[in-house]
Amino acid sequence: MKSLSLEYQDGQLRILDQRLLPQKEQWVEIQSPEDMIQCIQKLQVRGAPLIGVAAAFSLAQYAKKASVDQIKEAAQALKQARPTAVNLMKAMDRLLCALEEKKDLESEAQAIFEEDRQLCERIIEWGEPLIKDGDGILTHCNTGGLATAGEGTALGVIKRAYQNKKKIHVYVTETRPLLQGGRLTTWELEKAGVPYTLIGDSMSADLMAKGKIQKVFVGADRIAANGDFANKVGTYMLAVLSHYHHCPFYVVAPMTTVDLKSQKGQDIPIEQRAAEEVKGVKGAFGQCIWAPYEASVYNPAFDVTPAHLVSAWILDRGVFEQPPQWEKL
Amino acid sequence: MKSLSLEYQDGQLRILDQRLLPQKEQWVEIQSPEDMIQCIQKLQVRGAPLIGVAAAFSLAQYAKKASVDQIKEAAQALKQARPTAVNLMKAMDRLLCALEEKKDLESEAQAIFEEDRQLCERIIEWGEPLIKDGDGILTHCNTGGLATAGEGTALGVIKRAYQNKKKIHVYVTETRPLLQGGRLTTWELEKAGVPYTLIGDSMSADLMAKGKIQKVFVGADRIAANGDFANKVGTYMLAVLSHYHHCPFYVVAPMTTVDLKSQKGQDIPIEQRAAEEVKGVKGAFGQCIWAPYEASVYNPAFDVTPAHLVSAWILDRGVFEQPPQWEKL
Repeated sequence: MKSLSLEYQDGQLRILDQRLLPQKEQWVEIQSPEDMIQCIQKLQVRGAPLIGVAAAFSLAQYAKKASVDQIKEAAQALKQARPTAVNLMKAMDRLLCALEEKKDLESEAQAIFEEDRQLCERIIEWGEPLIKDGDGILTHCNTGGLATAGEGTALGVIKRAYQNKKKIHVYVTETRPLLQGGRLTTWELEKAGVPYTLIGDSMSADLMAKGKIQKVFVGADRIAANGDFANKVGTYMLAVLSHYHHCPFYVVAPMTTVDLKSQKGQDIPIEQRAAEEVKGVKGAFGQCIWAPYEASVYNPAFDVTPAHLVSAWILDRGVFEQPPQWEKL
Repeated sequence: MKSLSLEYQDGQLRILDQRLLPQKEQWVEIQSPEDMIQCIQKLQVRGAPLIGVAAAFSLAQYAKKASVDQIKEAAQALKQARPTAVNLMKAMDRLLCALEEKKDLESEAQAIFEEDRQLCERIIEWGEPLIKDGDGILTHCNTGGLATAGEGTALGVIKRAYQNKKKIHVYVTETRPLLQGGRLTTWELEKAGVPYTLIGDSMSADLMAKGKIQKVFVGADRIAANGDFANKVGTYMLAVLSHYHHCPFYVVAPMTTVDLKSQKGQDIPIEQRAAEEVKGVKGAFGQCIWAPYEASVYNPAFDVTPAHLVSAWILDRGVFEQPPQWEKL
């Protein structure tokens, strides 16, 4: 099975090192859950849906040689690799459940992969009709083929509109501090031939005021029961700016991103990351620190957007203008 | 005469190279208007008030050996070094006027320097009382001693509040693409011992939602007659976010920043800068390009904030909650 940035074949698991893009396309062999935890924490593997899929394959690979207790322990460790994206926890719980039921973990991981691919496809079918000829579309971070096992969520919708010959222009926020927009979304859009413009995160307001943005599409790392959601830091900023400029703001995600145990946004744990990420940059492109070494830094990986700022939730089950009644889906 | 980043003595003009901060404190000798134009365009000299002062000294230095026609030509060239900050145009017009009146240009430049220092002082006296014990204060770009001949505008107000023993905490946006917040404001606050936290530009909304920001203070590169103003790109974003979060938003500038020939914000010319600035970073700290080389980029140096989003204009003539009637000041 192969996606844009993950490959699994006969117990061999490889991931495309996303830290190195767009300069280098280098695949990394995953040998153990420890390898995968490192890859997730360093964002070599990233994107809420893909993290779940990748962790599932890693656990399935490990299960071939590990005891039940070892598998359970590894699942717990994988769950803790990153705290915000709930797809990871759900994938681990699903494999643990399969383990209890003495099912084959590899088949289960393959099912998760295939389901994620299909979830993307259904999301795209629901979301694509919202895009009209002539739209300027803003997106944040990376939510494409690099972030899922399939064609992506928010970026999948955008790319499909282009493939369907709609005349669109995409504005890509660079997404400081880790530059997923500037490095990854640009790379995906270049590959797909979609016209885009890269901007600094703080330039989005100016573009909205100038009428260049008709719609904003973003992904989600976790959606709470009331419709609030956590996504890459800066998403909440875009939601407020969209609200002010009367610009529709869409969150695009599979149902695997919904966490009914989180009643509201404030219940979602937010990962705090290292100060060095804000004091400079680091990647295959080189590294620099420009801030004073002793500078104190605030670096949340995500922020929370309240439901009332969302124009619609674009899910694999449909487009919802109000927070869905999840139990009925 | 000496400020934090400019020195003039007996025809010798030196500037602190602000591109190299905070890693290196290196002074550069200015020999000609061409040198100064280069320094302004490369942001070795920056900050609307300081650009005016520095250009004035450069022209005065040149006047010692140049003909009247050459001086006039140099003044026109200096005026065009950067299009948005109006202090530059005003300083040049003032020296040209002095030239007509056969006054000494060096004395005139020294007067501009000394006046700017005093303008900062008066601004600070008006603005400082607005800051209360316990305030979390957000500022953007750099508006301190590095941006003026004196103690600064917005950052001057903030530093004075700390010197007056008010318990404050400053949140500094890094200010992509050229990182004046991450490099220069942090450097000034470190020197002054003021407690601060560096953040990515897109994190300000999250901090406001969490109640960490009580006030926002920013500078201005040009204020139009109706109170709209141009300032570092991202300022308009902060104005909208402040409005949404009911957070007072102050613009702090000397009267030399007011341009009555610009009726409204849209009349202010906005400088567009090189794509490379957004595709990566470059400085004494090193350089990297992380975006695809062929990426198309939008890189306005400034954006325009409409008057209705401003809580008050803090000027050297007072604090105004409505756009002042300039002719009466």
